[in-house]
Amino acid sequence: MNVHLAPGRRTAPDEFDTATRFAVSAAVTDSAVTPMAEFHRWYAGCHDRMGGVGVVPIPFAAMSGWHFEPDTGNLVHDTGRFFTIEGLRVRTDRPWVSDWTQPIIVQPEIGILGILVKEFDGVLHCLMQAKMEPGNVNRVQISPTVQATRSNYTRVHNGTSIPYLDYFRRHPGARVLVDVLQSEQAAWFLHKRNRNVVVEVFDDVPVGADFHWLTLGQIRRLLRMPHVVNMDARTVLSCLPTALAGPVTDCSGDGFAEDVRRSTSGEAEPVHTMGEVLSWLTDIRTTRELIQQRIALEHTAEGGWLRTADQISHQDGKFFRVIAVDVHSAGREVASWTQPLIAPNGPGLLAFLTRRINGFLHVLVQAKVDAGAMNVAEMAPTVHCYPGNYRDVPQGHRPPYLDVVLSAHPGRIRYDTMHSEEGGRFFHAMNRYVVIEVDEDFPVETPPGYCWMTLNQLTGLLVHGNYLNVELRSLVACIQAA
Amino acid sequence: MNVHLAPGRRTAPDEFDTATRFAVSAAVTDSAVTPMAEFHRWYAGCHDRMGGVGVVPIPFAAMSGWHFEPDTGNLVHDTGRFFTIEGLRVRTDRPWVSDWTQPIIVQPEIGILGILVKEFDGVLHCLMQAKMEPGNVNRVQISPTVQATRSNYTRVHNGTSIPYLDYFRRHPGARVLVDVLQSEQAAWFLHKRNRNVVVEVFDDVPVGADFHWLTLGQIRRLLRMPHVVNMDARTVLSCLPTALAGPVTDCSGDGFAEDVRRSTSGEAEPVHTMGEVLSWLTDIRTTRELIQQRIALEHTAEGGWLRTADQISHQDGKFFRVIAVDVHSAGREVASWTQPLIAPNGPGLLAFLTRRINGFLHVLVQAKVDAGAMNVAEMAPTVHCYPGNYRDVPQGHRPPYLDVVLSAHPGRIRYDTMHSEEGGRFFHAMNRYVVIEVDEDFPVETPPGYCWMTLNQLTGLLVHGNYLNVELRSLVACIQAA
Repeated sequence: MNVHLAPGRRTAPDEFDTATRFAVSAAVTDSAVTPMAEFHRWYAGCHDRMGGVGVVPIPFAAMSGWHFEPDTGNLVHDTGRFFTIEGLRVRTDRPWVSDWTQPIIVQPEIGILGILVKEFDGVLHCLMQAKMEPGNVNRVQISPTVQATRSNYTRVHNGTSIPYLDYFRRHPGARVLVDVLQSEQAAWFLHKRNRNVVVEVFDDVPVGADFHWLTLGQIRRLLRMPHVVNMDARTVLSCLPTALAGPVTDCSGDGFAEDVRRSTSGEAEPVHTMGEVLSWLTDIRTTRELIQQRIALEHTAEGGWLRTADQISHQDGKFFRVIAVDVHSAGREVASWTQPLIAPNGPGLLAFLTRRINGFLHVLVQAKVDAGAMNVAEMAPTVHCYPGNYRDVPQGHRPPYLDVVLSAHPGRIRYDTMHSEEGGRFFHAMNRYVVIEVDEDFPVETPPGYCWMTLNQLTGLLVHGNYLNVELRSLVACIQAA
Repeated sequence: MNVHLAPGRRTAPDEFDTATRFAVSAAVTDSAVTPMAEFHRWYAGCHDRMGGVGVVPIPFAAMSGWHFEPDTGNLVHDTGRFFTIEGLRVRTDRPWVSDWTQPIIVQPEIGILGILVKEFDGVLHCLMQAKMEPGNVNRVQISPTVQATRSNYTRVHNGTSIPYLDYFRRHPGARVLVDVLQSEQAAWFLHKRNRNVVVEVFDDVPVGADFHWLTLGQIRRLLRMPHVVNMDARTVLSCLPTALAGPVTDCSGDGFAEDVRRSTSGEAEPVHTMGEVLSWLTDIRTTRELIQQRIALEHTAEGGWLRTADQISHQDGKFFRVIAVDVHSAGREVASWTQPLIAPNGPGLLAFLTRRINGFLHVLVQAKVDAGAMNVAEMAPTVHCYPGNYRDVPQGHRPPYLDVVLSAHPGRIRYDTMHSEEGGRFFHAMNRYVVIEVDEDFPVETPPGYCWMTLNQLTGLLVHGNYLNVELRSLVACIQAA
């Protein structure tokens, strides 16, 4: 008799099988479970119901439950939980700016970003939530089934219980399809990670007013619209297994979508072996310097960060500001609250250059060292920057490929949509997500920190944490919607 | 025309091919390049030449180049480089001791542990070094070709240049077979990692007096002897690709060695899928608490750490001591020096329980949270502890399986050898490495933090960092020598 025992949770028997089932779900771009027309009526209704919430900048002193610590100037919650805003001193070997200080969000707890999936008529559907976050430009966006910090789910702030959370913890009938710790914005967070998890259920699931079942094909349609699918949903979606075992033969998409599917499939022949890619990254992680030292928030003044009654900002007017807001809402765990948020100065640019090499689409990835990184460097989009920060930087120190992207011919742009970053921590933080296909004259030789990879290689790394940064994971979700 | 371009370094075209070549090398237990008799003569000669070095405990005040910082009591080098000994405050959710302070080594730089390999008569040989380290009980052990901290190889201490280093950096003809950042002793180091790298060369390599070429089979014979193959060599050896593509049919080993080979091969059928294993670890990394706060070394006094003129030790006489030594040597990069070392109080125990499940050997792995861990928990041996630390601990709080190991019938012990830990940082630190095969009556059900895995699954994770802790990697190298 064979022994079967699980260390905790059942998982899918075969990742290729799971990938095939998600490929089927991706091909279903409308569904009788939630027809798109109904989705849009419901989503509009959620805006009516939750979107009217007031989000008003207030002086720091008007926050309730938050204060600046007398000794350090760190911005902390009275309970000592949630997160703190402290200072970070960074020393790197970057040529242009090699050391600096900055405010940074410290949140050592690991939260859950979970999507519940269930088959209807043989097709996997994802239970998506319409969620209000104070930092969203449009207040309400589509989020995972569960999006909870540890403080949330251990009830530190005494809110109502979180729907569906138990499916992600100890539900005997559930099956885990994705379960991995992934990093978040390392320019603003110190060593922050969340658990990205997808669980399949087989029993009946009651559907709350803020929730709807959508196929992967429907969600990808929404990914072509600005500010609909939030960052938390995008990162979890990027971790879905997509590497089909064999060639993809039943697709009828246009040329680029078909190239994306082939590059994601097991048939794609990469120009570099995985061994080469991992050795390239190991070399950068070893040789690039990143010394992080936590300091008192008030000591960031040395680096030009100035605190007034209602913001902490840099004297050059660049980077970001720390602000406080007052939120009045009815649809969240607690009815109203105040909190600090990070407000970037202007939108960012996250761009993929893609190119056919040896017959298969490759994407150009950079290894990027950010202030709060846990593992020195992670893979990032070809261009990942806030262009405004470079307005007075000498030409030789502008990010490689930035000007290629900014001057791309419209006929070469395969995807171009604005999306929001996490609205629970960032105020109106948004990035232009762009995918550009360069032609086969474009040089394949790259500067040392760059590497061409197939999408199959890139998504294959997503069962492990800290390889793809959150911006790259978002872009991976986007390119599959192109 | 197909485009070929490397992001930096060439790697092996196929990891199965590399695994097969190392399997061939493992089957060669003696070699005309360095016959074992010659090895032993040479190794004895190295002891004569280098082993007479004096290592004498001295008062901290007698160290040259090291001092206690006035503000913090941290033990630092005058240059600010190498490493520092600071304090760490740890908060966990362990039931028995949930928070404590301790001294910790802080060494943010990433060093290189590199083995050069080359084919002779169709068989891969490893260039191994006889290296003196002050903390080794027997002074001289067999180490990788290159074992260098960043301070070493950037010449901070003004020593002689490091032989063979360039093969691991920018050698055009070399081929990378292993290249991964792996963690080191997280009980004593904060977030420490080294680059484990294996490079194959095709041109002639001059062999220095402290170096000899050995097959993997020869090295495995040495692994059955105590205190010969050092920790740095063991961790690099553990990262060699071993997962043969097909079944292993040409082996003539005894029953257990054959079981180890089958468990390492691609034919092994694990009781848990990789998805289950990774989800189990993700769950522990998310739900176990590990809050690390760097503090001044002098503040560890709160936790019972007392500094005298010549040691920092715990008032209970447990754990470890920080000491200083004076070293007089002729065979190292500099002729003599003084330095601090960590001296554990008594030997540790690192044990695998192994068991056939469904026809294939499985090893029992625990997810262990250590003070200085970078990623909350890493996989560790079934038993990984200093038994002396538990002498007065209530029965229910002793490590699971400790008593199973200590009372194992000798007929069940498949491997049992003492090895040293890194002699450049630790003084007489040694562990008993034990492999026990339990019979099929032994319960497969485990406490929550434990998981049965095949060796194929375990070694498959070694292309990534921070999954297997250094003690587990050492034990993986040992079980392959059983």
